[in-house]
Amino acid sequence: MIERTKVCVNGYGTIGKRVAEAIAKHSKLKLVGISKYTPDQDAKLANAHGLNVFVPKDSVKSFESKGIAVHGSVDGMINESDLVVDASADGKGMQNRQTIYQPNSKNAIFQGGEEAEIADVSFNARSNFEKANGKQFVRVVSCNTTGYCRLIKPLLENYKIKHINAILIRRGADLNDAKGSALNAVEWKAHSHHAHDIQSVLGSIPINSIAFKVPHTHSHINSMNILFEDGMPTKDELIDLYSKESRVAVIKSASTSSQIVEAARDLELPRNDTFVASLLANTIEINDGGVFMSFSVPQESIVVPENIDAIIAQSNGMHKEQSMRFTDELIGIPKIKASLEKIFA
Amino acid sequence: MIERTKVCVNGYGTIGKRVAEAIAKHSKLKLVGISKYTPDQDAKLANAHGLNVFVPKDSVKSFESKGIAVHGSVDGMINESDLVVDASADGKGMQNRQTIYQPNSKNAIFQGGEEAEIADVSFNARSNFEKANGKQFVRVVSCNTTGYCRLIKPLLENYKIKHINAILIRRGADLNDAKGSALNAVEWKAHSHHAHDIQSVLGSIPINSIAFKVPHTHSHINSMNILFEDGMPTKDELIDLYSKESRVAVIKSASTSSQIVEAARDLELPRNDTFVASLLANTIEINDGGVFMSFSVPQESIVVPENIDAIIAQSNGMHKEQSMRFTDELIGIPKIKASLEKIFA
Repeated sequence: MIERTKVCVNGYGTIGKRVAEAIAKHSKLKLVGISKYTPDQDAKLANAHGLNVFVPKDSVKSFESKGIAVHGSVDGMINESDLVVDASADGKGMQNRQTIYQPNSKNAIFQGGEEAEIADVSFNARSNFEKANGKQFVRVVSCNTTGYCRLIKPLLENYKIKHINAILIRRGADLNDAKGSALNAVEWKAHSHHAHDIQSVLGSIPINSIAFKVPHTHSHINSMNILFEDGMPTKDELIDLYSKESRVAVIKSASTSSQIVEAARDLELPRNDTFVASLLANTIEINDGGVFMSFSVPQESIVVPENIDAIIAQSNGMHKEQSMRFTDELIGIPKIKASLEKIFA
Repeated sequence: MIERTKVCVNGYGTIGKRVAEAIAKHSKLKLVGISKYTPDQDAKLANAHGLNVFVPKDSVKSFESKGIAVHGSVDGMINESDLVVDASADGKGMQNRQTIYQPNSKNAIFQGGEEAEIADVSFNARSNFEKANGKQFVRVVSCNTTGYCRLIKPLLENYKIKHINAILIRRGADLNDAKGSALNAVEWKAHSHHAHDIQSVLGSIPINSIAFKVPHTHSHINSMNILFEDGMPTKDELIDLYSKESRVAVIKSASTSSQIVEAARDLELPRNDTFVASLLANTIEINDGGVFMSFSVPQESIVVPENIDAIIAQSNGMHKEQSMRFTDELIGIPKIKASLEKIFA
């Protein structure tokens, strides 16, 4: 067992702020701090949360002139850390890898907005935890891909899949996005990257995907039409299978994506984060067309536990089950799963 | 060949106003008039369009006091007509059938908002035109069901279908709806009525459906995952098959539902009505998971040609191909199909 791994979070946006707070609570990890590149309200939030804020050397004055307490430079933060969680804007990760992490021999975790090629392994804790052991660069796959992996992996362990057709109905924007989807339309992206992204974790499973983007902010709704080679599960077997998954809630009576967010508010979950994929059990169809089922993905929070597990896996801190259980307890997942399953029983 | 069939339209809303105008232009039909029950802007629109407006006997004064010219009573309109197109609010059709059409031995055509049991036949021109011959009560199925029938019938004629999984992404409201979907959520209805409704036209084909309602106004987007018993079509064969369908446009380059509406505006189509289902050819996937494809449905106009054909079929006015061609020319469908296919080539 290693001592506390020193971790910094490079980028403090939708994912970075959530991951940083989870790291700060983790007894095996030490949060060195977070970086900010623009002196906006998120920098003030980091101050308010008592996190060390690091900024580019030549930006110190512009932060301080806005009343933001600066702890040091981004370079210093990265030097001081064993591992960097890169939560910067999509596509900036590759530049960071080439100009910072590689020259300084730092381990890094990237997010799903980056191409798979950025890392040695594309990661989902439930699916391939061990593959991240000792790797310098690990990529936590995006929110929807994480949801699909959590649901497909248990199927792969129990059944032989002939084909999966994945149909995504994506939320148009997050609350802090200034730009989002078309305001009044369905937008589609056929042969979307999600199929390839799921394969980056699960290997060459037969899958294709299409993504529809629609104008709302409350959760992605994903569906799968799955064909099996031999026997396929019954509805009860599916529900039983997923009930045992720590990061999947089996909810039976919801009928809108916003109801799940409302439940998160009622439960007073910080930021309304549920972290779990919710299997919408009332959507399950099993017949000659195979298995059809839908699930919701809390787009902002689902990758938070995956980032924590990726850190532990990368630094060989714990075994898979131990780390997942530890992370789950850390951010309250068992209680969230139980509560959602009760509310929507 | 019969003389001009006298037709009235009972209810002048989203569907009624479109059907009434098509009837008024039809050389084999005579539009007696339309009925209005509330003295709102639609009544003034009917006046402006020069249609005879009929109202309940005891409402004449309330219409006239608002400056609306009243031609006579609803009872009189129905007496004068050979056939009534019932385009009243969902569910009111059954009451009209029992209290007006049956006692007065009038033929009637109902809309898809009514239960299948209201009529002797559920109608889609391409699929079962002849079944309406001589029937007293005919129900034109709803917009999405019409779209599915237009796409499934040609498949049934050429291939053996094992199973269809229908996935609807429905628009949240029409422009004149005061209430619509949840403003900021995806709403789902598993095991939706659409599968049963499609079977009411096409017989006991193996199909299930799920409907997702999303907050926008520009077209329903529907998908099908289709499994075949023996051989399945190639993408080129599918495109070829639907290119020959007069009421399906094969469009290749659109990526949002609103782009099709924008094209309808650019083409200066009255009310932006396209009447055709648009196969989104860029969504076609053919692999071990079967055929997956999506199509858009102009929710307000797609049933207009079906209503006209239902009148002709019911009154034995023409044969199927003759009537469909006549209706298509009447409302400009060949040109619309060609234009959409060119714009989105």
